Amino acid sequence: MRHPATTSATAPSSYTPTDRTVPTRSRERASYDRELVHSILDGAYLCHLGFVRDGAPVVLPTMYGRVGERLYVHGSTGSRPLRTIRAADPGLPVCLTVTHVDALVLARSAFHHSLNYRSVVVHGTATTVTDPEELRIALDSIVDQAVPGRSQDARPANAKELAATAVIRLDLDEVSAKVRTGGPNDEPEDLALPHWTGIVPLTRGHARPVPADDLDPAVGIPDYLHAL
Amino acid sequence: MRHPATTSATAPSSYTPTDRTVPTRSRERASYDRELVHSILDGAYLCHLGFVRDGAPVVLPTMYGRVGERLYVHGSTGSRPLRTIRAADPGLPVCLTVTHVDALVLARSAFHHSLNYRSVVVHGTATTVTDPEELRIALDSIVDQAVPGRSQDARPANAKELAATAVIRLDLDEVSAKVRTGGPNDEPEDLALPHWTGIVPLTRGHARPVPADDLDPAVGIPDYLHAL
Repeated sequence: MRHPATTSATAPSSYTPTDRTVPTRSRERASYDRELVHSILDGAYLCHLGFVRDGAPVVLPTMYGRVGERLYVHGSTGSRPLRTIRAADPGLPVCLTVTHVDALVLARSAFHHSLNYRSVVVHGTATTVTDPEELRIALDSIVDQAVPGRSQDARPANAKELAATAVIRLDLDEVSAKVRTGGPNDEPEDLALPHWTGIVPLTRGHARPVPADDLDPAVGIPDYLHAL
Repeated sequence: MRHPATTSATAPSSYTPTDRTVPTRSRERASYDRELVHSILDGAYLCHLGFVRDGAPVVLPTMYGRVGERLYVHGSTGSRPLRTIRAADPGLPVCLTVTHVDALVLARSAFHHSLNYRSVVVHGTATTVTDPEELRIALDSIVDQAVPGRSQDARPANAKELAATAVIRLDLDEVSAKVRTGGPNDEPEDLALPHWTGIVPLTRGHARPVPADDLDPAVGIPDYLHAL
């Protein structure tokens, strides 16, 4: 999702690599292309957010939304990650990772087994969103990330709910994508081995929506759910 | 996968909660049940592994295998996480997280939108596997985690490949699961709102295997792929 306030028409087409976004191996799989990064992020709504608490790493699954060059991550004001972030001044170092697995890759050798995947890793400093207008945009983006259009067909958060909601922001700045595609890379001397080799594509999809028991049967399935 | 050497017949049925495995909110979703934890881990093969490097968190997607109460994570000896772990003595604090998303949960209010999910978070100290027999078991477990039975139908790693492979071990000790199921939890005062409410189940599966171009057509699709 794009939002004019946060997207510059003159943004360069690539993110600038840094020491920690350049992998030490499989460098050919790394990319800093902005459109690729956006497309990987926009194809998901769940990320794994890492932060450090008492010197040890913590990795939690959580929902996010993208608005231009900003990611928003949702939480409760009472939850541990959000309390940790609010206690950090001026912000908390985080690492946010999004991964799609596209296929299992079966080589003739155990060593060359792999996955086809697309991932994005974002390093940065998370800050809490306090501006009411930005908070509204952020919350809409998180709902719409999973179900595009849904934020316009739900009751917006009221004051009490907003007070119980914390949203953190992470700017897309130190970012890399990593992509593996294609078939197995067997060693030449293994080609005559009798083992099946190839890929097993993975499928993902949405099943038919299941209405809540208390939904008025007159409310049909909205178009934005058919479009999923 | 169970391995006699690492599974005690007298293991208690639950992991012991600790300060960092007891959530500060939604405690009713947390579980320490060993069978539940195993079932969530056994239904996946990709985890997000978090560690701390230069004081900042790093979260990387990677494959794993479970053998009894041990998780094995695969890497290259030249990769940054594995180098970081080998440089840490006696081991590196990590957090390993596995998440299944089962359904989108659409409430009448934006605030109560959620996901149905099952996740496991493991905290602990990762060590590198050096024993040759354990290394073989670990590598087989990682291949079999994604495709049960495949390790017996592939050329095992040779000495050169073993030297280029690093496997880290993380014991299942400080572990929790978190599960959300069911429909939306709308506020009573929202029940008359006109918005569709319910869940959208998510589907995952394997498509038909695609043989490599150089595979002898006489090699048919093995039973363990049909069974996926």
